[in-house]
Amino acid sequence: MGLVEKLIKKGDAKIVKVVLDGVGDLPVKDGKTPLELAYTPNLDQLAKKSATGLHIPVDYGITPGSGPGHLGIFGYDPSQVTIGRGVLEALGVGIELKDTDIAVRGNFATVEYQNQNPIVIDRRAGRIPTEENQRLIAKLSEKIKNIDGVEVILKSGMEHRFVVVFRFQEKLSDLVNKLNDTDPQVLGKPPIPVSSPYPELKKVVEVVSKFIDQASEILKDEPKANYVLLRGFSVKPDLPTLQQRFGINPCCIATYPMYKGLASLVGMKVVPVKGTDLKDEIQALKEVWETYDYFFVHIKKTDSYGEDGNAEAKIKTIESFDQYLLEILDLNPQVLCITGDHSTPCIMKAHSWHPVPTLVWSPYVLGNTSERFTERECLKGELGIFYAYKLMPLLLAHAGRLKKFGA
Amino acid sequence: MGLVEKLIKKGDAKIVKVVLDGVGDLPVKDGKTPLELAYTPNLDQLAKKSATGLHIPVDYGITPGSGPGHLGIFGYDPSQVTIGRGVLEALGVGIELKDTDIAVRGNFATVEYQNQNPIVIDRRAGRIPTEENQRLIAKLSEKIKNIDGVEVILKSGMEHRFVVVFRFQEKLSDLVNKLNDTDPQVLGKPPIPVSSPYPELKKVVEVVSKFIDQASEILKDEPKANYVLLRGFSVKPDLPTLQQRFGINPCCIATYPMYKGLASLVGMKVVPVKGTDLKDEIQALKEVWETYDYFFVHIKKTDSYGEDGNAEAKIKTIESFDQYLLEILDLNPQVLCITGDHSTPCIMKAHSWHPVPTLVWSPYVLGNTSERFTERECLKGELGIFYAYKLMPLLLAHAGRLKKFGA
Repeated sequence: MGLVEKLIKKGDAKIVKVVLDGVGDLPVKDGKTPLELAYTPNLDQLAKKSATGLHIPVDYGITPGSGPGHLGIFGYDPSQVTIGRGVLEALGVGIELKDTDIAVRGNFATVEYQNQNPIVIDRRAGRIPTEENQRLIAKLSEKIKNIDGVEVILKSGMEHRFVVVFRFQEKLSDLVNKLNDTDPQVLGKPPIPVSSPYPELKKVVEVVSKFIDQASEILKDEPKANYVLLRGFSVKPDLPTLQQRFGINPCCIATYPMYKGLASLVGMKVVPVKGTDLKDEIQALKEVWETYDYFFVHIKKTDSYGEDGNAEAKIKTIESFDQYLLEILDLNPQVLCITGDHSTPCIMKAHSWHPVPTLVWSPYVLGNTSERFTERECLKGELGIFYAYKLMPLLLAHAGRLKKFGA
Repeated sequence: MGLVEKLIKKGDAKIVKVVLDGVGDLPVKDGKTPLELAYTPNLDQLAKKSATGLHIPVDYGITPGSGPGHLGIFGYDPSQVTIGRGVLEALGVGIELKDTDIAVRGNFATVEYQNQNPIVIDRRAGRIPTEENQRLIAKLSEKIKNIDGVEVILKSGMEHRFVVVFRFQEKLSDLVNKLNDTDPQVLGKPPIPVSSPYPELKKVVEVVSKFIDQASEILKDEPKANYVLLRGFSVKPDLPTLQQRFGINPCCIATYPMYKGLASLVGMKVVPVKGTDLKDEIQALKEVWETYDYFFVHIKKTDSYGEDGNAEAKIKTIESFDQYLLEILDLNPQVLCITGDHSTPCIMKAHSWHPVPTLVWSPYVLGNTSERFTERECLKGELGIFYAYKLMPLLLAHAGRLKKFGA
């Protein structure tokens, strides 16, 4: 238990944290970033009376994926927590994981049999169309529901990708995360059987091996996708929840499965959102306002347009959020934080390591340091440049939910 | 292995890091620092389009020597690495150390014999002139070449100082660094014999003791320098190299032995420089441009003039570098970093703890935060104030040589 956890005080102050995914950026036009180019009168006004700064998602120079990016702003040091690839993929396709689950990323692949031994000749089965994938997953799901008392859950991803979850009856060792991938990574080799030196994984290895045998038997007459390769075996990380650590009652308002999944990993309740627009998210926020005291509102499109290199659409998304900001303020939260989980510069079309603009509004800020909510204006702010996982204690302090340390 | 090392990606982007030794300063005239007083049109222009900030060499309030100062900007946490005094002195006089070497700092001293026992009456032999030192070292070198199969290498320093290296046949335990100094530190006492409770140092103790006996026998009729005191017994620190940690192919362009030595400790290849001027260093940089992908260019005079308290000459050195900056830019590096290893304020005539101006130029910076490369302008920049050892991951990120962390 860290210092912050020891100082937690109960309270009912409400904290709203809006995450504009990938909002940080670099100059795209006339030396200006999307945040600088956007017309955001409401954000500007808020920025003037807020504490501002920039957070470093993981560490200097480290570009985070969505997992580490969110863990940081949720208050966990992302360099100290591992979220397995399988778990992240399962969250991404919207599977609600239990403590007894093993999540695995699967690829449909093509093998040739030589003396009845499979040899991988295409690790992605020619990147079959997603619809074809869905047909195959339906076929596999129909025939493989349970292996030795372990429930098998299958879900299609895009193209050749799928997720398989093995739902055991008992909690599993995190040694599972060390299980070998079956993908040989090169062509002309046989898939690698799953094996483990750890006796506690004996049953896991048996169940997974039977799954591979059964699936390849079912798929054997498919022209392309006649085999499955598995990788990223993982169990849910054993994280103390936000309730346990910080005594808050948190919820998540998001439209993409990945973020709902990440939020549920740290104990947030996922609020249903009727639709995929920002309007729908704001509506959901209003509906659950009385139920929770910590609201994580995730806005995806800033990141998607950054990844596309579409600065104009990113700017429009920011401007659209600016319109809804007043509705959030009307709810009268004690603390409002606006930030991102990482930067996604349009010129890089990818996540990056650049510090992320952050604004904290509460009655207890200095303020009047920044004219706007932009990368350069946040550099002038009272929060300075700080590690993302320090944001959570800051918000708790502003909400009056941290006791004095020492006398 | 840290997070950064796990994320290393191969690439061929070239990184140039120019270290203006001791460049950071304090006001010397009209409230302005040497960087502020210097006329640097090229640096100014570069600063405007670069990421800027200041690095803390070791930690708040800690004044680094050259060793820790350089280790930090090379990417090693200097508070976690010990470079023995003997090793640093050996590097300073240009001895190329091997893994089987023990390096020791020596002082010529004056003793009086009482009942045939030496008693130290001058720990520095009256600070004999350097030429006298050189004569004595030649005499000792002539007569002591090898002790019990261990090669003995002697080299003069300034005044009463010299370096002795014992070159063993086998790699030695770093327990060597715990060997006691023989200097009693006070007058009227006998030199302290070298001894050690560790059996693996038995031969070391024997060889060193024989060296002291033989040297004092050879020197016994000298009027002043009739004895040798030894301190700072040390072996090369066992550091993973830059190649191993970061997958780069680094070289060092420097004119002073100490910096070449420090660079070689972390695996840099030392490039020959024909002369001691900045012009010669730039010429060397051009000659090896195709051979390496990471170039550490060390410029000494900013520090020397700081130590002299000669602000005018420090300013001129900065202005002279400004002229050569265009030649570096003409090489078209993907990443160019300009910084120092520490501050050497002219008014202090010594190294100091003050954060060091840092500039990183690459296509992936925000920029447009600082008008010049000065202490005060760098305070406005997007890098903020950061620990020196975080600079390396930042440069690797800007060079596209770090993978994304997590999905």
